[in-house]
Amino acid sequence: MSTIDLIEAAADHLSGHVRRTPLLTSPFLDQIAGRRVLVKPECLQHTGSFKFRGAWSAISALDDAARKRGVIAYSSGNHAQGVAHAATLHGTRSVIVMPSDAPRLKIENTRALGAEVVLYDRASESREDIGEALAAERGLTLIRPYDEPQVIAGQGTVGLELAQQARDLGVETADVLVCCGGGGLTAGVALALDRHASGLRARPCEPEGFDDVKRSLAAGCIQANAATAGNICDAILTPQPGEITFPILNRLCGPGLAVSEAEALQAMAQAFLRLKIVLEPGGAVSLAAALFRKDEIAGDAVIVVASGGNVDPQVFAKALEFLT
Amino acid sequence: MSTIDLIEAAADHLSGHVRRTPLLTSPFLDQIAGRRVLVKPECLQHTGSFKFRGAWSAISALDDAARKRGVIAYSSGNHAQGVAHAATLHGTRSVIVMPSDAPRLKIENTRALGAEVVLYDRASESREDIGEALAAERGLTLIRPYDEPQVIAGQGTVGLELAQQARDLGVETADVLVCCGGGGLTAGVALALDRHASGLRARPCEPEGFDDVKRSLAAGCIQANAATAGNICDAILTPQPGEITFPILNRLCGPGLAVSEAEALQAMAQAFLRLKIVLEPGGAVSLAAALFRKDEIAGDAVIVVASGGNVDPQVFAKALEFLT
Repeated sequence: MSTIDLIEAAADHLSGHVRRTPLLTSPFLDQIAGRRVLVKPECLQHTGSFKFRGAWSAISALDDAARKRGVIAYSSGNHAQGVAHAATLHGTRSVIVMPSDAPRLKIENTRALGAEVVLYDRASESREDIGEALAAERGLTLIRPYDEPQVIAGQGTVGLELAQQARDLGVETADVLVCCGGGGLTAGVALALDRHASGLRARPCEPEGFDDVKRSLAAGCIQANAATAGNICDAILTPQPGEITFPILNRLCGPGLAVSEAEALQAMAQAFLRLKIVLEPGGAVSLAAALFRKDEIAGDAVIVVASGGNVDPQVFAKALEFLT
Repeated sequence: MSTIDLIEAAADHLSGHVRRTPLLTSPFLDQIAGRRVLVKPECLQHTGSFKFRGAWSAISALDDAARKRGVIAYSSGNHAQGVAHAATLHGTRSVIVMPSDAPRLKIENTRALGAEVVLYDRASESREDIGEALAAERGLTLIRPYDEPQVIAGQGTVGLELAQQARDLGVETADVLVCCGGGGLTAGVALALDRHASGLRARPCEPEGFDDVKRSLAAGCIQANAATAGNICDAILTPQPGEITFPILNRLCGPGLAVSEAEALQAMAQAFLRLKIVLEPGGAVSLAAALFRKDEIAGDAVIVVASGGNVDPQVFAKALEFLT
């Protein structure tokens, strides 16, 4: 099956298990952005981010024996929670390999959602090596965070919903800004839009200094980041675009957009004030691009996928300081 | 038309203009509450609270000449924003009479949404007197915040949505906890549930010390509050239940519930952490009751109407301190 067919199949598997997130608007955001802003708040998804979609899709696609043995994932946090919760709901076990410097809240939540958490040092160890070794040893299936067709398919259901919701609102042409780490969400959304809403174009959004996808799209080949830590947008700091995701992004996406940490925090503050939703920094870079990169965007409307809300209260308090 | 018929008619007028808010859940909240918790986040409604529903309903029910002359309302803030925005969207003008000690954010938003704001002193002046005088002088129609059938009808659409959503989730019997000031939302919800989901029972929730509705229900006749200021739940501090709303509440609601200011703040913190939504104190008393009054609630599931999210960042930061 091609990936777009996998997305349609994933939508069937996810139906009744995933939350269909609404599209939120505010005249105040429209004013800042200089155009109509439609925000899809995936922070309201189960486990607080879109990652639950891909996790559910991947686990539900396993054969019975593999699903019974369990799954393993490595993740800075949101994929971890998505896999842990989806595994528990499927009645199977999950092992999650997490960096020891991941936000405390994400580690605690992952454990509480039923996973066994194995911590590793982001600077000196490879999560891929650890994950693959544990998978072999215990007979677990590795659920990769983005370079995995079933995961991309699950994330692509965001794009299916968006295509329908934009049509219902009469929005035929718009850039769709997507928070982008390894590119699983962006690739899935791009494929779904390409099939179902050809006037909507996905554009990856990243933190400045960690804009590997933006640079890769500009170069036409995969470019790496110099580092994968040291930015407040922890959820989307990845080494480089995926081997599976990049060709999709390269074929279907518009140019990437990059924003500063301060702009991500200001976008969180505006989401608090105007939409009454909680975003984490990595889940707010798309809204930040809509609000603060308006000259790089065309059209009367812009669609924003706000991808997650798992943020420590201290970081959120920092965002609120922009309002006082 | 009876009020329940008005609700059905309001649902038609609101269709396409009001946001159908989802039902949110979290296994973490279920654990605290000791039962399944289903939260309807009306903070995600246009203008950040359910009040937009009643405002739209009332303005759309006016005859053309009256609608053209404009409307007036008195409000501590959420009704103000709802009326201002609904009036602007209907292409007419609004005058809003607000207490001078209302949260700054609510005053500013009301102006930005297109209203003329007239401030009054909550301690020495009567908002009713001011509102009625201005209405007479300028030919404006007064939109009362709760003791007004078309407003109750609009708020009742929350109940219509809930009846359907609970049925879809297989919840047939549950208490429905509703943040309650003058009783417009609670009365509308109670009427809608009585018609469409007879196993669901509305229960008003209030701040301790300002629990006029709870005491009125216990006494079987209207009881007043000793004060209408001096509590963090500013959105729901009203002198006493309405003349129109109380008989509805008395006939249809279960006993009232009252929570402390600290409990309202803790509920805001849990809504931030587990649902990724922003609630104001007065919009969180229902969730606080679900989490911290579990012995006063029966059944395997409880439904919470979280009524608004227009909170100053300083107050929200105070709620976040419960998490650190």
